[in-house]
Amino acid sequence: MDPFAPTPEDRFTFGLWTVGNPGRDPFGEPVRPVLKPVEIVRKLSECGAWGVNLHDNDLVPFGASAVERDRIVAEFKATLEDCGMVVPMATTNLFSHPIFKDGAFTSNDPRVRAFALQKTIVAIDLGVELGAKTYVFWGGREGTEADACRDPRTAIVRMRDAMNFLCEYVKDQRYDLVFALEAKPNEPRSDMYFPTTGHMLHFISTLARSEMVGVNPEVAHENMAGLSFVHAVAQAMEAGKLFHIDLNAQKIGRYDQDLRFGSEDLKQAFLLVRLLEGTAGGAPYRGPLHFDSHAYRTEDQDGVWEFARGSMRTYKILKARAAEFDANPEVRALIAERRDAKLDPLLSGYTPDKAKALRALNLDASAIAREGLRWERLDQLTIEHLLGVA
Amino acid sequence: MDPFAPTPEDRFTFGLWTVGNPGRDPFGEPVRPVLKPVEIVRKLSECGAWGVNLHDNDLVPFGASAVERDRIVAEFKATLEDCGMVVPMATTNLFSHPIFKDGAFTSNDPRVRAFALQKTIVAIDLGVELGAKTYVFWGGREGTEADACRDPRTAIVRMRDAMNFLCEYVKDQRYDLVFALEAKPNEPRSDMYFPTTGHMLHFISTLARSEMVGVNPEVAHENMAGLSFVHAVAQAMEAGKLFHIDLNAQKIGRYDQDLRFGSEDLKQAFLLVRLLEGTAGGAPYRGPLHFDSHAYRTEDQDGVWEFARGSMRTYKILKARAAEFDANPEVRALIAERRDAKLDPLLSGYTPDKAKALRALNLDASAIAREGLRWERLDQLTIEHLLGVA
Amino acid sequence: MDPFAPTPEDRFTFGLWTVGNPGRDPFGEPVRPVLKPVEIVRKLSECGAWGVNLHDNDLVPFGASAVERDRIVAEFKATLEDCGMVVPMATTNLFSHPIFKDGAFTSNDPRVRAFALQKTIVAIDLGVELGAKTYVFWGGREGTEADACRDPRTAIVRMRDAMNFLCEYVKDQRYDLVFALEAKPNEPRSDMYFPTTGHMLHFISTLARSEMVGVNPEVAHENMAGLSFVHAVAQAMEAGKLFHIDLNAQKIGRYDQDLRFGSEDLKQAFLLVRLLEGTAGGAPYRGPLHFDSHAYRTEDQDGVWEFARGSMRTYKILKARAAEFDANPEVRALIAERRDAKLDPLLSGYTPDKAKALRALNLDASAIAREGLRWERLDQLTIEHLLGVA
Amino acid sequence: MDPFAPTPEDRFTFGLWTVGNPGRDPFGEPVRPVLKPVEIVRKLSECGAWGVNLHDNDLVPFGASAVERDRIVAEFKATLEDCGMVVPMATTNLFSHPIFKDGAFTSNDPRVRAFALQKTIVAIDLGVELGAKTYVFWGGREGTEADACRDPRTAIVRMRDAMNFLCEYVKDQRYDLVFALEAKPNEPRSDMYFPTTGHMLHFISTLARSEMVGVNPEVAHENMAGLSFVHAVAQAMEAGKLFHIDLNAQKIGRYDQDLRFGSEDLKQAFLLVRLLEGTAGGAPYRGPLHFDSHAYRTEDQDGVWEFARGSMRTYKILKARAAEFDANPEVRALIAERRDAKLDPLLSGYTPDKAKALRALNLDASAIAREGLRWERLDQLTIEHLLGVA
Repeated sequence: MDPFAPTPEDRFTFGLWTVGNPGRDPFGEPVRPVLKPVEIVRKLSECGAWGVNLHDNDLVPFGASAVERDRIVAEFKATLEDCGMVVPMATTNLFSHPIFKDGAFTSNDPRVRAFALQKTIVAIDLGVELGAKTYVFWGGREGTEADACRDPRTAIVRMRDAMNFLCEYVKDQRYDLVFALEAKPNEPRSDMYFPTTGHMLHFISTLARSEMVGVNPEVAHENMAGLSFVHAVAQAMEAGKLFHIDLNAQKIGRYDQDLRFGSEDLKQAFLLVRLLEGTAGGAPYRGPLHFDSHAYRTEDQDGVWEFARGSMRTYKILKARAAEFDANPEVRALIAERRDAKLDPLLSGYTPDKAKALRALNLDASAIAREGLRWERLDQLTIEHLLGVA
Repeated sequence: MDPFAPTPEDRFTFGLWTVGNPGRDPFGEPVRPVLKPVEIVRKLSECGAWGVNLHDNDLVPFGASAVERDRIVAEFKATLEDCGMVVPMATTNLFSHPIFKDGAFTSNDPRVRAFALQKTIVAIDLGVELGAKTYVFWGGREGTEADACRDPRTAIVRMRDAMNFLCEYVKDQRYDLVFALEAKPNEPRSDMYFPTTGHMLHFISTLARSEMVGVNPEVAHENMAGLSFVHAVAQAMEAGKLFHIDLNAQKIGRYDQDLRFGSEDLKQAFLLVRLLEGTAGGAPYRGPLHFDSHAYRTEDQDGVWEFARGSMRTYKILKARAAEFDANPEVRALIAERRDAKLDPLLSGYTPDKAKALRALNLDASAIAREGLRWERLDQLTIEHLLGVA
Repeated sequence: MDPFAPTPEDRFTFGLWTVGNPGRDPFGEPVRPVLKPVEIVRKLSECGAWGVNLHDNDLVPFGASAVERDRIVAEFKATLEDCGMVVPMATTNLFSHPIFKDGAFTSNDPRVRAFALQKTIVAIDLGVELGAKTYVFWGGREGTEADACRDPRTAIVRMRDAMNFLCEYVKDQRYDLVFALEAKPNEPRSDMYFPTTGHMLHFISTLARSEMVGVNPEVAHENMAGLSFVHAVAQAMEAGKLFHIDLNAQKIGRYDQDLRFGSEDLKQAFLLVRLLEGTAGGAPYRGPLHFDSHAYRTEDQDGVWEFARGSMRTYKILKARAAEFDANPEVRALIAERRDAKLDPLLSGYTPDKAKALRALNLDASAIAREGLRWERLDQLTIEHLLGVA
Repeated sequence: MDPFAPTPEDRFTFGLWTVGNPGRDPFGEPVRPVLKPVEIVRKLSECGAWGVNLHDNDLVPFGASAVERDRIVAEFKATLEDCGMVVPMATTNLFSHPIFKDGAFTSNDPRVRAFALQKTIVAIDLGVELGAKTYVFWGGREGTEADACRDPRTAIVRMRDAMNFLCEYVKDQRYDLVFALEAKPNEPRSDMYFPTTGHMLHFISTLARSEMVGVNPEVAHENMAGLSFVHAVAQAMEAGKLFHIDLNAQKIGRYDQDLRFGSEDLKQAFLLVRLLEGTAGGAPYRGPLHFDSHAYRTEDQDGVWEFARGSMRTYKILKARAAEFDANPEVRALIAERRDAKLDPLLSGYTPDKAKALRALNLDASAIAREGLRWERLDQLTIEHLLGVA
C-alpha cells in the first residue's frame, strides 16, 4: 500500500475555485473549460480528498434566482453525499463584481458596505446549509492605491463593525460556525489592510466576540512579503487562533502564484508540516488542510488532477520526513531543552526577590559566548532528512 | 524666519547611535571617529533637536565599573541640562555582545536569558535616571536561521515571560515608564520573531499588563518587507498603542538601510506625516519624533550634521505640504465622508431587525459599480502637492 | 499658458491597451466598457498626446478576415490623420491566446514557434503600414514554472533564431524599422527568460544584426526586481541601445502594477527624467515617451483621461525640476568633475610606463579617506528640489 | 565508501574569508577568533576541499612591508604544497578600507581610481604568484545612495577604462589569467552598478579584450533581486562566459546572507547542479566550485568545519539526485525534444521562401492550445527526486 496516498483522516480539502480554475490571468484567456461544481466534487473524491470548500458564487452564480439557487444546492448536496465528501469551510466572493472595486466592508460608499453585509449574510446561510463549520473572510479588495482616499483607521473601524455585526448574526442564528480571517499584503490592491497574519491576529483581539474569530493563514500570502510562514502559524497556534490553513507555494516578492504545495521552499514546507503535525512535541493542528492553489496554465484537465494528487502526496512525504527527523537521536540531542535549576525559576513570575537575585548573578558572558550551538549541523540534518539521505 | 527650522515643540530626537555611527558595515571599517556622547548632545542641540535617546552601552561601556558608570552618567546629565536636552527614550543593547548571538530573551540557554534580564533591569534603572518615559525593546537577534532549533511557540512564551517580568519590575519600582516594542522582519537574523508591527501588536495583547506596552514602529523595518508603514502606524494609533516612532527611509527588499527620513518614498513619508500630525482630521500623535538613521558612509562629521538637519527639515516641509493638501477644497470634496441616512444605521450594532432590513435591501450593484471614484485625480493632487505645484 | 501642458514636441504616447484597459484583473471582472480604437485616438489627441502604440490584436481582432482587417485599418488611419496622431511603435500580442500558454518563440512545440513567427510577420506588416519606426518585443510568456521543462540555453537559442529571422525579414522587406526588446523578471510566468534590461542588452549583443536591435526598458519591470531603473536606462543609453521606453510606476516586489508615471518613487522618476532630458549634461534621449500604464480599477472613463493627463503633467513638472536642479550652483559645485593632471592620464589607455607610474605612486589612503563627499547634502538638495522649496 | 565525500576531482574551493569569517555583523562583534591563513588551508584540506581562494588582504595585511609580504607568501605557498591544495582564483579587496567608501574604479576622485588600479596590479601579481588562473572582480562599493552624484554612464566608462587597462596589463605580463566579473544588486551600496549577471555580461561585450573576461555569478547575489540564478548561469554558459561560480544560499529580498549551499531553495540548487554537471544533456561546467559563504554566527570553530563539510556534501547529494532524475524514463519522455520535419526548417535561417511558407501555414491554434503539457507532473517528479522517493 502506498504510504503517501491520501485518506479521509488526512482532512485534505480543495476549493471549487482551485481545481476549477480555468487558467485566466492578467495577460491571457482561459486555457481550460469551466467545470461544473458537481464534476469537481466527483473528481476530488476520486483523488482522495476529504472535502471541498467554496465561495458563494463558485456554486450559485451572482444574481441567481431563489429557485435556481435551491436547485443547484440540492444537486450539490446530493453529489456530496454520494461521494462521501464534506464542505468544512465556506466564504463570500466580495471581489469579483465591479461593485467591490474599492473594497467591500471598508468602502467609502455605505451602499457598497451594505451590499457586502447583505451578500455575506446570505452566503453564511448557504455555507451553514452545506455543513461548513468555518467561515473564511479574505479581504479581497480591502485596500488602496491612492492612500489619501480614507484614513486607514476608518477602514479598521469599518471592518470591525462588519465583523462584530456578522458574529452577532451567527450567534443570533445559533449557527455552529467560527470565523477565520485571512491576511494578504497586496494584490489585487497595492496595499491591503491587515497585510499579515500578525496584523490580523491583533485586529481579532479587538473584536467584541474575539473568541469565535481566528485566522486562516496562507503560505503564499505571508511569503509574498518574505515573512516566515512557520512563525506566523506558530504565533496563531500559540494563541489558540489557527482555525484554518491555506496550503500552497510562492516565491518571495512576486504576484500571487498559488503554486502546488511543496513546489517552492521545501525547507519551509517541511518545517510547517512538522509544526502542524506536532512531530517536534508541540500540540498539533487538527483542522482541515486546505490546498488553495491551482494548476499551471500549461495543463489540461488531466494535469489539474495530477496537480491535486501531487499536493497531497508531497504533504504526506514531508509528514513522514518530519517524524523521522524528530525521532533522530542526534536531532533530539541538539535541540533538547536546557535546564538550569538555579536560573530557570528566575526567568518568569516576577518577585522583588527574583529581581534581587538576578541583579546579583555573576555570569561569565564571554565564556558563555564561546560555546558553539551547532545549528549548522542541525540545519544540515534538516536538509539531509529532506533529501532522504539521513 | 525659516518656517522649516526645528524647534523644541517639534519633539525631534536622535539616538546616540545614529549621529554617532562611525560608518562600519559588513564589508568595511569605520570611516568616522567615534564621538563622545557629550559631544553628540552638544551638536544635536545646536542642530535644533529636542532630545537624545540611547542604548545602555551607547553611554556606559559594557563591563564598566560602578564608579566609571556614575562618572559618565553625571557628566552626561550635566551636559543635557546645560544644553536643555532631554532623554525621552532608552533601550538595552541585547545584540552586540557575542553572548546574544542566538538571541537574548528567546535563547535556548537559560544563562543567556538570565543575563538579558539582568542587563535590562540595570539599563531600565539607567534610563529612568536620565528621565526616559519610554523604554524600547527591539529584539535584536531574537530569531533564527536554522529554524528547527526551537519551537517558535517556545520563543513567544519566553518573550512573554520576559516582558511580563519586566513590566512588574517597573511597577514594583514605581517608575513612570511604558514599554514600546519594535518589530523587524529580518537582519541580523534570517527570520526574526514578531516580524511586523502587526505581529507585535498581537503579542502585546497577550501580556499581563498590556496597557503599559505599545509599539515603536520603524519606517525601514516595515518597508524591508514591502508593507505599508502608514497602515501599520494607523493600526497602532487606532488601538492607542503608538508609544514611540522611528523615522528613516528604506528601499523595499534590502538590507537595513536606515537612510535619512524622506530620502526614499516621498509619498509614503508625506502620508505618514499627515497621519501623525492629524492634518486629515484624525487624532494626531503627540510623542517624540525619533530619527533612527545614520549618515551615508561617504560623509565626514560635517556631513553627519547636514544629515541631521535635513531629516528635520524634510519632516517640516512635509508637514506644511500635508496641511495645504488637506485644506485644498478639491481634496476635501473628493474624500468627504459619504452619508446615507437609510443605510448607515444598518452597518453596525447588530439587531435581528437590521439583519432583516439588510436582507430586504434592493441595491443596484451594476449602477453603483459604474460610478467612478476619482482616486486617480486624488493621487495626482497628492503628487502635485508634494511637488509644490498645487 | 500652462507650462506643464503636453505638446507634440514632448513626443508623449500611450498604448491602445493602456487607456483602453477595461480593468479586468485576476480577481475581478472589467469595470469599464471596452473603447473602440478610434475613440481612443480621438480622446488621446484631445489630451495632448503625440502618438498611439498598439499590439496587432488591439486593433485587428485575432482571426479577423482580410476584409475586416482592411476596413479596420483604413478607418484607423483616417482617424489618425484626422487627429494628427502618429503610430511610432507597434508590437505583437504573443500572450493572450492559449496557444502561447508556454511561451511563443521559446516554446518546446515547433508548431507554436511557427505560429508565433507567422503572427509576428503579419503584425510587422501592419505596424509598418501604420507608420511605426520601432517594433517592440516583450516576451509575454517566455519563461517557466517547472524549470526542468527545457534547458534555459535552448530557450536562448530559440529566441536568437527568431530574432535573427525577423531582422532579416525586415531587411528583406526594406522596412525602416528597428526592434526594441523589453525585459521582465516574472509575471505571468514564475521566471521569465531575459529578466532584466541587462540580460536583454547582452542577448542583443549576440544577434547577427545587433545594430538594428535595442531595448525598451519599462520602469515597472525593473522595479519589480528592486533594481535601479535609472542605472539600467543609463547602461542602454551608454551603449546606444535605448530605442524606446515605457514609463509607469511600481512598488518593488509586487505584481505588475503599471501605475501612473510618477505616482511611486518620485526620486527615481526625477533622476530618470533628468537622465532622459540630458539636464545633467549628458546626451539626451530623443525617442517617444510612452506611458505603459493604466488607470486604477476604481475609475470610470473620465478617470482614465485624468490619469492620462496626470502622467504627462508629472513628467513635465519633473523635467522643470530637473533643469532647476542642474542649474543650481551648489549642485554644480558638489558634482563638478574632479581633475588631476598627473593622475588622469594614468587611468585609461594602458602602457607599460603607465603601469610603472601607477606602481610608484605614493597616495595617502587614510588622508583621502577622511575627506567627506557631501552626498547627504546633495541628496537633500535633490529632495528639496523635488518638493519645490529649493 | 561514502559516495558523498568530497574528492579533488570535485574541484571544491573555499575562500580564506569564508571559513575564516569571525562572525562580525552590522549589529555585533566577532564571535570567533581570526584564524591564520595557513591554519585555514590545513583544515580545508582535511575537510576534502581542493583549493582555496583569497583577496590580497586576506593573506597580506593592508600596508604590509615587502619583507613581511614575502615571508607570508612563502609560508603560505609551503603550506599549500604540503597540503596538496591549490589557489585557482584570487581577487582584490577594494571595499574594506575607507578610501573605497564611494567606490574604487568608479569613484569621482581620480586619486581613488588610481589607488584602486595600483592595488589591483599588485594583487594580480600576488594571485599569479600563487597559481591563480582566474581573477575575480566584485565591485564592492561601486554604486550609490545619492544617485545624483554622478552620471551612471560615467561610472560605466570608468569601469570599462579600468577593465581594459587591467586586461592589457595581464597580456603585457604574459600572465595565464582570465577575469571573472561578479554582479550584485545592492549592499553595501543602495544601488550597485551592473546589478545582475545580465548587466555584467553586456558590459563585458563592450570591452576591448572581451574574450578574456567572463562572469562569476553568485547564488545569493542573483537571489537578492529574486531572479532565477539558473537562468543567469545558463545565459553565461550559452555565451561561453561562465569562468567561475560562487555557491551559497539566500532568501529573496534580504541582506546578503551567504548561507550554506543548499540550505535555502533546494529546487533551485538542484536545477543549478543539474545544469553545471550537464546531467540533462547540455555541456557541463568544468571550473572550480567555490563556496562563497560563511557559518552562522552561532557557531564555534567546529561548527565552521561542519558547515564546510555540509556544503560539499549537499552538492554531491544533489548531483546524484540530478543524475537519477535525468535517467528517469518518465522525465525523459516528458521533456523529449519535439521534432516536426515540416516546420523545423522554417524556424531559423531566414529566406524569402521561408517567410512565404510561414505565411501560408494553416495552424489550428485552438487545437494546439488544448494540449496539456504535463509540467505539473514534471515538477512533481522533480520534487519527489529531491525528496528521495522517486
